[in-house]
Amino acid sequence: MEDNVVSWPRQNFSRRSLVVGGALGLTSAAGVTAALRPEPARAAAGATRKVTIYAEALPGGLFGYGLAPGKATVPGPVLEMWEGDTLEITLVNTTDQRLSIHPHGVDYSTDSDGSPFNASFNKPGETRTYVWRSREMFAAEGRRFMPGSAGYWHYHDHAMGTEHGTGGVAKGLYGALVVRRRGDILPEKQFTVVFNDMMINNRMAPNTPMFEANLGQRVEWLAIGHGGTFHTFHLHAHRWADNRTGMLEGPADPSQVIDNKDLNPGSSFGFQVLAGEGVGPGAWMYHCHVQFHSDGGMAGIFLVRNADGSMPPGAEEAIHRFQGHVHTAQHG
Amino acid sequence: MEDNVVSWPRQNFSRRSLVVGGALGLTSAAGVTAALRPEPARAAAGATRKVTIYAEALPGGLFGYGLAPGKATVPGPVLEMWEGDTLEITLVNTTDQRLSIHPHGVDYSTDSDGSPFNASFNKPGETRTYVWRSREMFAAEGRRFMPGSAGYWHYHDHAMGTEHGTGGVAKGLYGALVVRRRGDILPEKQFTVVFNDMMINNRMAPNTPMFEANLGQRVEWLAIGHGGTFHTFHLHAHRWADNRTGMLEGPADPSQVIDNKDLNPGSSFGFQVLAGEGVGPGAWMYHCHVQFHSDGGMAGIFLVRNADGSMPPGAEEAIHRFQGHVHTAQHG
Amino acid sequence: MEDNVVSWPRQNFSRRSLVVGGALGLTSAAGVTAALRPEPARAAAGATRKVTIYAEALPGGLFGYGLAPGKATVPGPVLEMWEGDTLEITLVNTTDQRLSIHPHGVDYSTDSDGSPFNASFNKPGETRTYVWRSREMFAAEGRRFMPGSAGYWHYHDHAMGTEHGTGGVAKGLYGALVVRRRGDILPEKQFTVVFNDMMINNRMAPNTPMFEANLGQRVEWLAIGHGGTFHTFHLHAHRWADNRTGMLEGPADPSQVIDNKDLNPGSSFGFQVLAGEGVGPGAWMYHCHVQFHSDGGMAGIFLVRNADGSMPPGAEEAIHRFQGHVHTAQHG
Repeated sequence: MEDNVVSWPRQNFSRRSLVVGGALGLTSAAGVTAALRPEPARAAAGATRKVTIYAEALPGGLFGYGLAPGKATVPGPVLEMWEGDTLEITLVNTTDQRLSIHPHGVDYSTDSDGSPFNASFNKPGETRTYVWRSREMFAAEGRRFMPGSAGYWHYHDHAMGTEHGTGGVAKGLYGALVVRRRGDILPEKQFTVVFNDMMINNRMAPNTPMFEANLGQRVEWLAIGHGGTFHTFHLHAHRWADNRTGMLEGPADPSQVIDNKDLNPGSSFGFQVLAGEGVGPGAWMYHCHVQFHSDGGMAGIFLVRNADGSMPPGAEEAIHRFQGHVHTAQHG
Repeated sequence: MEDNVVSWPRQNFSRRSLVVGGALGLTSAAGVTAALRPEPARAAAGATRKVTIYAEALPGGLFGYGLAPGKATVPGPVLEMWEGDTLEITLVNTTDQRLSIHPHGVDYSTDSDGSPFNASFNKPGETRTYVWRSREMFAAEGRRFMPGSAGYWHYHDHAMGTEHGTGGVAKGLYGALVVRRRGDILPEKQFTVVFNDMMINNRMAPNTPMFEANLGQRVEWLAIGHGGTFHTFHLHAHRWADNRTGMLEGPADPSQVIDNKDLNPGSSFGFQVLAGEGVGPGAWMYHCHVQFHSDGGMAGIFLVRNADGSMPPGAEEAIHRFQGHVHTAQHG
Repeated sequence: MEDNVVSWPRQNFSRRSLVVGGALGLTSAAGVTAALRPEPARAAAGATRKVTIYAEALPGGLFGYGLAPGKATVPGPVLEMWEGDTLEITLVNTTDQRLSIHPHGVDYSTDSDGSPFNASFNKPGETRTYVWRSREMFAAEGRRFMPGSAGYWHYHDHAMGTEHGTGGVAKGLYGALVVRRRGDILPEKQFTVVFNDMMINNRMAPNTPMFEANLGQRVEWLAIGHGGTFHTFHLHAHRWADNRTGMLEGPADPSQVIDNKDLNPGSSFGFQVLAGEGVGPGAWMYHCHVQFHSDGGMAGIFLVRNADGSMPPGAEEAIHRFQGHVHTAQHG
């Protein structure tokens, strides 16, 4: 077992991630491929896993988290847990800045809070351990349960630049955290999209990496909002239930089905789609539906290839037009 | 069967719609009355209906969709489908602009995407066919279902002015799309409200059309957000569940009940209320709860008449005051 | 029975409330302690309670609602009802301004609307009665129910300054309204947080009152948005279900579990947590996750003491640092 592979459970899916800067476009893309792991979960909850994460300075004034020295990306690696398990993170700060790692959705004591006022951060060059615990729902009164940790969460710095880590959040220190409930359906592919403010070194459409999947593959989208403005995440030709998993929990699930959702600072959600299901292969857009944000470059392509991985008719031309058109819209 | 009547299922209700410009007020109102249709749905899913829609230039620099030549409105007609059915739209572009029709919530192949980069738009003067398919939920693993298309959706141009159709969205090319699940309760009346940015030719309160219903009538509200700013839709004296239908799916439905909901660009929702139920007839406000938006004219009246259609005591005076007051607030 | 104690049901919990001004910080804090009340609800729905509320001018140009002369606070007192009951409010306007009280979530006729155009407001110095009725869900067709009034709502002025009461909303005339369903779990403590725009006399972090509870206490948070900007409410180390109660309604409840939620003008939500459950005692932050709002002072401390009420190790220092750090961030 390679404990420096953070993704848990290990699955046969590849991950591609990117950051979309609010009204400004993309900063960078990260690709992580996890090893195949046959069993979907350990037999019992309560396992503890250890992982080392490296916080590093990146070109262009950015900072990133990575699973090995020299491997930091923006966003950082997707971290996954089974509900009930614990993740013990050794954070190596290779930078000359104060920084930390602060999670949403899981349990931690004040010394893993990541907040300066709780004195739980890494000084420049310091290594420090953070412990994240997840838990299952438990009964309250009547039929009610206090909620567990399962969800599509995220993590980020809470110490760089300001008391709230505004500097780290602006410069790339964030990533997705998935806590799965036993029985959840595992995806084959996984994409992370972060909508954020304008940043240094931003890349806008059309210089955005494409997310790619084959027709029918189960793709998981992880959407995270950061910064100081509001966004709405829209995906063409695919939709999801506005609940914990994005799927309906039986025919009586009352959840609204949506294809456009608010993605404001500090919020996150996730969902799974079957790539091209009911609509076929092709080049599909995802974008912020705030009009001047999409005009400004908060847009990219979800390329659904044929089931055998080959290019569907017209897709090459569509990608070419997307790149050319947006370029024209930006500069012409 | 008149296939130029887009509303499906055809019902004995009248529709009134309007557009509320973000912080700026109303652009125009559209009224469509569908013919009585006794049966609520066809026996089996899978039917295909054909409809012709005309995109036209309107006074004041606006553009609209309509079901017959010279009948374009802002917003366009409400389009309805039963989940499982297909809608084949022949879009006649009578304008000198590039434009398209792009739906949320339903299935379409890339040549019905409406996006320029997929080359699926109407050139000036061109007629083109778009196919929208809807589908029912289907089982995934365990008790989970991949969601179907039933929902309160919307459609809009995706090609005018910019690569994302920003010009069409700003000038009136949008409308509501309702996909109903078999067994859904049909409304007696239907209103469309679009919160958008400032537009040319905007009409602000008090020059906003009133929505009218009789006490106890089942009224369906279709709310759509567009443009570049955020809004919150509030309706006085009525409320709804924050789920797919706006009603609770049995006593154990955990949905929050609300009377104020975010309505940001690209999002939509709908719900049904019994007009004046529990509160009586009278003049009730709906408005954006962003304070300077309502002050600026994003407000109107939902007039609940007596059950026999007569005017309730005080309502005339209230309407007069609303019109006078807002006028005063604008200019005084 | 003291009918000037508005809280209903009366419980053995203390309440602390505050207002967080959008990007600007806190205005003031209000503490109300309700008397012990052994029985959680009356036997049958349909009871009517009478209460007198005083609207008063406060120092610094603010206005507040209070349950006795000279006791007005910002926000006003938490008003509570059991679903099915009626609240009859005698509003005494001690100010020289036109004002009213307008509720969300409950039923009222036009003369209790609080809107100037319905002529339902208090003139300067005037006393006026408003009647709020709540109702339980009732069956519609099939398994569907029209929603009842149970929810985490709010009330506010709708008449001061402008036709929409913008002046009153900006200056403190608002508070929380809780309508409980029979069987709902009652909290031991209750906090109100209002995210609003910059106001006169605002207090920003670190001059914000702390919310305090002992480890394991059931704490209810009431969150309300007002004004003209968007916010996201985040609480460290605690989370809730995004539904009516914040708890899961059985293991199959599909609701997303969250710790960060949009809190835009006119919206409200509430939830209960067990203080420090799974994370231990200590000083935990709550803040707006819009980065420049938290940097500007929309942040405070939720102090979880040890179960016996004593101070946990490190908490004094954390509070000291929070106050010092934010002070530094503001001025240095």
